[in-house]
Formats: sequence, structure tokens, C-alpha cells
Amino acid sequence: MKKKIVVLGGSFGGLTAVLEIKRLLRDQADITLISKERDFVFLPSLPWLIMGSRQARDITLKIEDILGPRAISFSCSTVTGIEPDRLKVITDNGDYPYDYLVISTGPHLSCDEIPGLGPEGGHTLCTFTLEYAQKSRQAWLRLLEEPGPVVLGSTQMASCFGPYYELAFEMDHELRRRKMRHKVPITYLTSEPYVGHMGIGGLGKSRRFLEDEFAERDIKIVTNQSIDEITPDEIRLAGGQALHFKLAMLAPPFKGVAGVAELGNPRGFIPADEHYRHPQHPNIYTVGVAMAMAPAESTPIPTGVPKTGSMTVKMAKAAAANIAADIRNQPPLPAKPLDVICLMDMGKTAALMIADPILPPRQRSCLKKALWAKWAKIQFEKYFLWKMLHGYTNLP
Amino acid sequence: MKKKIVVLGGSFGGLTAVLEIKRLLRDQADITLISKERDFVFLPSLPWLIMGSRQARDITLKIEDILGPRAISFSCSTVTGIEPDRLKVITDNGDYPYDYLVISTGPHLSCDEIPGLGPEGGHTLCTFTLEYAQKSRQAWLRLLEEPGPVVLGSTQMASCFGPYYELAFEMDHELRRRKMRHKVPITYLTSEPYVGHMGIGGLGKSRRFLEDEFAERDIKIVTNQSIDEITPDEIRLAGGQALHFKLAMLAPPFKGVAGVAELGNPRGFIPADEHYRHPQHPNIYTVGVAMAMAPAESTPIPTGVPKTGSMTVKMAKAAAANIAADIRNQPPLPAKPLDVICLMDMGKTAALMIADPILPPRQRSCLKKALWAKWAKIQFEKYFLWKMLHGYTNLP
Amino acid sequence: MKKKIVVLGGSFGGLTAVLEIKRLLRDQADITLISKERDFVFLPSLPWLIMGSRQARDITLKIEDILGPRAISFSCSTVTGIEPDRLKVITDNGDYPYDYLVISTGPHLSCDEIPGLGPEGGHTLCTFTLEYAQKSRQAWLRLLEEPGPVVLGSTQMASCFGPYYELAFEMDHELRRRKMRHKVPITYLTSEPYVGHMGIGGLGKSRRFLEDEFAERDIKIVTNQSIDEITPDEIRLAGGQALHFKLAMLAPPFKGVAGVAELGNPRGFIPADEHYRHPQHPNIYTVGVAMAMAPAESTPIPTGVPKTGSMTVKMAKAAAANIAADIRNQPPLPAKPLDVICLMDMGKTAALMIADPILPPRQRSCLKKALWAKWAKIQFEKYFLWKMLHGYTNLP
Repeated sequence: MKKKIVVLGGSFGGLTAVLEIKRLLRDQADITLISKERDFVFLPSLPWLIMGSRQARDITLKIEDILGPRAISFSCSTVTGIEPDRLKVITDNGDYPYDYLVISTGPHLSCDEIPGLGPEGGHTLCTFTLEYAQKSRQAWLRLLEEPGPVVLGSTQMASCFGPYYELAFEMDHELRRRKMRHKVPITYLTSEPYVGHMGIGGLGKSRRFLEDEFAERDIKIVTNQSIDEITPDEIRLAGGQALHFKLAMLAPPFKGVAGVAELGNPRGFIPADEHYRHPQHPNIYTVGVAMAMAPAESTPIPTGVPKTGSMTVKMAKAAAANIAADIRNQPPLPAKPLDVICLMDMGKTAALMIADPILPPRQRSCLKKALWAKWAKIQFEKYFLWKMLHGYTNLP
Repeated sequence: MKKKIVVLGGSFGGLTAVLEIKRLLRDQADITLISKERDFVFLPSLPWLIMGSRQARDITLKIEDILGPRAISFSCSTVTGIEPDRLKVITDNGDYPYDYLVISTGPHLSCDEIPGLGPEGGHTLCTFTLEYAQKSRQAWLRLLEEPGPVVLGSTQMASCFGPYYELAFEMDHELRRRKMRHKVPITYLTSEPYVGHMGIGGLGKSRRFLEDEFAERDIKIVTNQSIDEITPDEIRLAGGQALHFKLAMLAPPFKGVAGVAELGNPRGFIPADEHYRHPQHPNIYTVGVAMAMAPAESTPIPTGVPKTGSMTVKMAKAAAANIAADIRNQPPLPAKPLDVICLMDMGKTAALMIADPILPPRQRSCLKKALWAKWAKIQFEKYFLWKMLHGYTNLP
Repeated sequence: MKKKIVVLGGSFGGLTAVLEIKRLLRDQADITLISKERDFVFLPSLPWLIMGSRQARDITLKIEDILGPRAISFSCSTVTGIEPDRLKVITDNGDYPYDYLVISTGPHLSCDEIPGLGPEGGHTLCTFTLEYAQKSRQAWLRLLEEPGPVVLGSTQMASCFGPYYELAFEMDHELRRRKMRHKVPITYLTSEPYVGHMGIGGLGKSRRFLEDEFAERDIKIVTNQSIDEITPDEIRLAGGQALHFKLAMLAPPFKGVAGVAELGNPRGFIPADEHYRHPQHPNIYTVGVAMAMAPAESTPIPTGVPKTGSMTVKMAKAAAANIAADIRNQPPLPAKPLDVICLMDMGKTAALMIADPILPPRQRSCLKKALWAKWAKIQFEKYFLWKMLHGYTNLP
């Protein structure tokens, strides 16, 4: 009898998992992807959408267009619970029994933890969904009309820093182009102990590199901060200091998604062994942001390890391979430590970052500013979207 | 009837103001410049005079030689008071009635605020007048005979830092040329919170730049200091530390000049709107160091915003244009934020600095070390003196 | 009657002294070198021995082979005392009367000052003798089998920092070559107030240089530390922090050697005037590590001024010349301040360092990373060993 494989999440992790399982198992499995979104959004391009160089349609694919031609079922539903003992996923559209489950539900943006935070009812914006990015786009357009102080960065418990570095560079660049940079003080505010920490304990000379690049661009740095409260025009820090803003974009604290959180740790992140298997439920795999990962080092203000799209894709491939192996009664593949390759936009240039493994000490690390990195970033987006639409997972 | 225009001060601001008013109004105005000095001194070259590469005559013009041929009256007098209600300037040579007044009296070097400070009765020297620079020249020659520790920098409330950075570089360079650098420890002591702050909140990478350049030259850095007292061979800091010296050159606290101070704030600096007009007396204009300017940010030890010759010239031109406009019953010209371009001597090289506007955030900032900057600095001095002698104010 | 000249120590200082005295005085002196070792070891290459690119035989010369052909007596003995009033050196092989004495006995590695320190009974290793370096080689080979944390650096009162910087670079390089760098966290732990201080108050941009180079290589920096105790796997710092290690190499506190210490200060270092003469016993000269030298500045944790081989050779030549002058009833040669030229290995590259004089302020300082410096370092070792074997002391 065919194995029932259910995958939760329609972004990098979930789509890679179903495509890869299909590639490995062909018709030996009955595969369903459950996502509350109908679209796949290439999240790394959201800063560009905010800056106006991308439209939503440029970076969006219909999940149905990807899965339909490949005979993978798609259910647009919200998961409300998992019953690991009864091997069932509960959703608002009914239950889904499974033999194997892959959880790739990403983060819950836990804005409630800080009064005044977030784009829903709060006073700050963020990048993490298409909808929020579109709101941010509107706020940015308003700021260009009525310039004032901008604050970008991350709250305590955030575990994604890159887009806010990118926005600092991109906004600086755009404001200079418009000859109005002197009307917009930009502050990078973060829970990181120093700029360039990025939740991974820094990367080579990243601290000095970003201090210098920000200094050259008059971007003020406020590090190692915990936020108490946000009013319509002020960010109040735990230390008593307050930052005035006209536009604030802050990565909120991350948690696991509600429907799967009870399988996880107190913040709802799901534990996994080196094969991405749940320690108590070996037929449940977790990849991407949903997975619990211990930080490189404890920081004075708590920060989390970021999981980029490229990391999530690697985890999803490993989980898919391990499921295929398990179905064929083979042992899981040898575990490989995760590495990360990342291209950070810097306005008119960009930086290549390689951390291998992701946390120090590393066999290999690289941080290089180069114009070709900007071109590589632009081209990779198109390449990845083409690859995803055509269901390729193992091209270079 | 011709308008009476009185201008106080015979340096960058005063001379530019009278020449520019003359250019704009020709014979429609009766213009008088009052200065207690008979000579214009190109103050930016005083460090070179101290080092021996300039004589007083190289950098001095007779004010009479500038104003005489252009039918501008000159009175060599000391202003003792202003009576804004009676439209009169009081001097030791009698009263001068005015319709418009331009105050460009520069700083009062307030050495009395720190016991032992200053070239008159105290134990430290400075650069701000030809006489003081000549005293410093003698002290430097003595130091070359009997080498010992040198301290250069700025006291609390100083608002001119550049010349002391230049002297540090120039003395280091000269001592190495003479193969005696190892006999002269050099310390840069300052009220700035960090080197490169310069009273303007830093300029791009200026902090790291100067830290590195000083480190390479074995120039010790002591920042964020307030001075309690100066003895014949020691500078006693508020924190208890004492710096031994054989030669000390320190920018003293700045105040407004006594004769005009009552129009100003508690430190005697005169308030002005964006058109350089006194808020209560719209026919009184103020330019240059005499004008009150709020700092970029409050620093732990109080520092002021420097006003360079190039800034003062720009202010004087704007004030002149606004006076001409007012006489013609036109509104003042649109206000432009001040920018600054500066060439800092570094011994065998130099640095170009651009801050536009002068205080952050800036649309444009630049800090570049280059040999051509040294040549540009040398050439600019000659060009400016030629231009001033011939009464040109609006050449490039 | 021939003067009796006794020289203690068979390393850079002692050998240079006897060869140079022989060159200057030919048969007018009766010269004896006393050393407890039969071999001269080129100590700067011990880090390479630890890393496996040198064997003991590559960097060792028999002292007898150097002195025998030149009619200089050699006694392999341990000095137990000096009787300056009776002009005698006491050894375990009998007494040696002298007219002139040169002390070049190097450091006593004072491991007893810190519980658990050192290669004899303690838990840490070091580089300073061939035997200790060979122990370290074995420990390094074990670490490659069972990787774990490495700690390199210096204890309080150490006065030799270079080899531990070199080892940090070399181990990083070797571990990357073996693709196992990520299994070995490396920490540089030191009593220096900052990296690059090196006991000489830093050298130009050495601080930033080493911070950057270590950051690029994921080498963690812990500065300004005093060590309380070392257990088999932990270094316990005075501040309470503990560093876990699998391999620790630490420069121990330095003292003067027991047999000569009573001529010296409380730590057994022997005072000398600018001609390397003992203030109370003008026929006793001291060169190299044995000589007391005041630090550049007091550091929060006490550190000493390092004396490199090149410095020791210069001191020994000056002492020899002064002895020759004294015998000929001439005054001592004009004293020259010591400078230092040093090539620091950095794995696949190296750095040239020049400090002239050794302590700031300096007439000349240089710190340059270059591949040619690596080649120069490799070639210099061979050149120096050839020169020493053939008794040349005044070749370039």
C-alpha cells in the first residue's frame, strides 16, 4: 500500500520536500502539501518589493501550478493540531492521516510579546509576508513624501536579521539618489550584541565590515537592546532610552506556529535530531524555521539562529531522502552539518557570505563585497523561481 | 538716502560681507568695516607658520589694501558695545550708527575658565591668532633643542579641532625627518568623545580613520576629557589622571567676543535664524564663529560645532545677499543648509573632507586621504589670498 | 697575562658573545662558554617543529662543533652561583674564575607560580625548549586524532608572546588544510591588555591588524587575563571565567635563572646600564632575557618586554665590544637604543615587524603582511644556522 506523506508549509521547505519526495519515490507515495497560502512567495525579494523594484507578481508562484502537473495533492488549509499517536493532522478543512509528516511551517511572528509591535494593530512594520511587505511599501512611499527618522532592525528573540541590514543599505541608497538623505536619519537597532553578529556569532570580519559600511553611510548603530514598548512614534528600550521614528521596521520575536507548537519546546520550535526527525516521533520530520536550533552562544539579549531559504532547502532535501530511505528500510543518510551561502544586498553593491558550518568554529568563512554579488543576487531570484515552477530540486 | 551698513570683524566673515555687499549694492550703500586688527591673516596656515614653512608675511594682507581701492571705509577700533535700539555700535574710537549690522567677530578664547590655560600667563599655547602662533613657533623651536612630551588637542567647550589634528600629523612628520621622533612622545588629548568626532558627530569613517592613522604614527589618544588645571608641566584631568608635557597646545573654550556678547546667549554666541538674522533685531546679521549653532548631539564633555573659513564665507555671502534683498524690499533668499569642505594636512599627505550638510544625517560625506589633497591645500592658500586682495568674492 | 672571560649560556646571546669576543681579541683572551645544554637550538623554529615541518636535527647545532675549531673552551655545566667579590662562577663541575663575565642564561620558566601550569606535572605545554616543543608535537598529533578546543597564549608575567601568535595562525592553517577546523575552536588567551600589545605597547596598527586577522580565522580573543589555576581540562581565570581545553599552550611567567638570580632584582633579572654592565659589578655584563628591562607602560595584568633572538644578538655584540674596549683601556662604545626586526609566521603568509626603538615613541615602526615575509623567514633560519656553525657574527 502506498505511504501517505503529508507536508505542512508552502514555502522553501514544504515545496522542496514534496518535490524531492516525489522525485525519489515516484508513485510509491501519496503526497499532500497543506498550506494556508495559495502562493509561494520568494521571500528574499520582499525588501526589493518595499523599495519598488519588484511587484508582487514578479516574485509569486501559484502552488497549484507547481504541484498540479506533478500529481501532488494540495490543500489550502490551516493546521490546527497534530495527533502524533493517531497519525493525523487536524485542519480547518478536515483531518489528514499520515505515515510520514514533514513540518515546515516557518515562524509565527510573535508581535504580542512587545506592546505596540507589528503591522497588525501596532506601530511597526516588517518584511516577513507579502502582505506586510506591501504595507511597508505604502509606509515607505509616505515617508518619501514626509521625511523623518527611520529605525530598522530586530527585537529580542528575533532570529532573522539579514533583511533589515539590506533595507538599511537600500533605503540609504534610494534616499541619496533622491537627494533627501539628510532629511532621514537612519538607525539600525538590534538585539544582536554587535552589528554583524546576525545570530550566528559573527562571520569573519563581519562586525568591523558592517560598522565601517554603516559609518560611511551615516547609519547610526544601537546594539544589544531589548524593547519594552512601542508608541506611535517612539521605540522605548529596556534601558530607558527612546528612539523617535516616522517609519520603523523591526523583526518581531519568532515562535513556532500554533497548530504544531505543542510538539515543540516552550517557544513552539520543534526539536529534531541530526536527521531532522522528532526525538519522540520518528515519523515526524521538521525543517526550516519551525525546527529548534541552539544558538552559537548565549547573547546578553536573546537572539536566535536564522534559517535562510538555502538552509531550509538543504534540510528539506535531507528529510526527503531520509523518508525515502526509511520507506525502503534503509538507514538515514549520513548527517552533514548545515552551511549557509547568502547574498546580502547593499544598495548599489552586495556582499557574498559563506559560513560553513553555519556556527563557529568554521572550516570555511567568507565575507566579500563585490558588484558581481549584486548581479548574482538579481539572477538567482529568476533562476530559483524558474526552477521551482518546473519542479526541479536537484539542479545546481 | 544711502543705507549705512556696518560690519564687525576683519577676517573671513567680515571681509567677505563688505566685499559682497559692495558688489551687490555698489553706491547704494555706505559700508564700514570695523576690526581691532589692521591685518587679515589666513588662519588655516598658522600650523604651517608654527612648523616653519610659512612666514607671517606669506599669509597676511593689510585690510586697508583690500578695502581702500573699493571705497569701503575701514576703522581699526575695538567694539565695546552695541545699542540695537539706537542703531549704534560703540567703539573705543567713537560711535558708528548703522541701518544694517553684520557681526563677524569670531571667538573669544576663554582661557580664564581653566587655571593655567593659554598663552597669556598660562602654560599652554594655541593657534588661533598670528601672535599666538608665533609664540608657538618659538616653543616648537625650543622643543627641538630639548625634546620631551608634546600634548595637542582641545579643552571642554572648544569648537575648533582641525588645527590640532594637523599639528599632530605635522609634528610627527617633522620629528621623523629629524630622526628624533623617539625622543618626543605625542599625545592627542581632547574633549571629543572619540577622535574624528570633530564637533560634527564624526564624518563617515573618520573615527576609525584617525585611530588607525594615529596608531601608525605612535600618537597616543586620550578622548572624552575635561581639564581641571594646568601646571607648568602637567595637564590635570577631571578624572584624576595627569599628562606630563614639555609643549602643550590646546584649543581653549570658545565664547562670544565681549563687545557683542550681550546680544547673545549665556556664552555670548549670537542667535540667528536661517537667514543669519537676529531673532529680535532683524537688521542685525551674524556669521561665522560669533553665531550660535546647536551641536549635532550632546557629548559627555561639552564640545561645539566648528565653523571653518569656508563655512563663514558662505554665511557672509548669504547675509550680504539678504541685506541687499531687504534694502530692495525683496524677501530673503531661500535658506540653504551649510556644508563644509575641508583639507586636513597630514604631514606628507593630506585628507579631503566633505560634510553636506555639516551635521548628520548627510546627503553626502567624504573622507579621502590623497597626495593631491596636499597639493590642493597648498594651492588654495595662494588662490584665496590673491582673490581676497583683489576683492573677488564670487569666483569659484 | 691573558684575561679570563667566562660566558654563561649557549643560545643566541652566549654564542654570539664568545664568537665576537674571539673576533675582537684573538689570542689576548682566554674564553670559556658554560651551558647546561650541549646543543644550540634555533628556538624561533620550535613552532614549526610542533607543526611537523621541522625535525630536531634541522634546527640544532652541537656547541662543540661551533666552538672547538675556534679555540673557545666549552664546559657543559650548570651554574649554581656567582661570587662577584671572588670573581668566580660556581658550577656542578667546579669553579671558573673570571676577569669578565657575560650572563646570557635566558629565562627560568616559572610554572610553579600557577597551579597546574607547565609541561612538567602540569596540564599545559609551551614552546621554549626543544624538549617542551617535542612534547607539544605529540600533544598536537593527539589533538588531530581527537579534536577539541585549543587555547594558546600567555600567562601573567610572561614576556614572550610571538610564538603563540604564530601557533594560532599555523594551527588554524593546518586544521583548514585537513578540513577539520570546525572541530577545533581556537582561543587566544593572554595577559596583554589587547592583542598586538606584545609586551611592547603595540606596534603601529598591530591591535587592529591582529583583531582582524583573528576574526577572519574564527580565532576567539580573550585579553587582559590573569590565570588562577589550571585543571586537566580547564583554565580558571582570576575573574571567575573558565576556558575548557583539550590542548593548551601557554607562555609561563618568566624569572631569572636560579644560579645567577641573586645578582638580580626580586624576579632574578639582572640590572644593567646602557652598556650592559652590572651597576655594582662593572666586569659583569648581561644580555638577552636574563637582563632586566622596564616595561613600556604598566599593564593591568603584568607583562614583560620580550627579547627576541635578534635583540639578544645585538646586546651580545655590544657587550663583547665593551669588554674588548675595557681590556684596551678604552671607554665603552656609544650606547644605541635597541630596535627589533621580527618575522611572524601566519600560516600561509607572514608579517614583517620593525620597532625602532623597541618601545614607543618610535622613530620607525612597520607592520606589513606579505608572502615574501614567509619566504624571508624560511631562508633566514638556514642562513643563521650556517652563519652560527661557521662562527660568523658580523655578516649582514
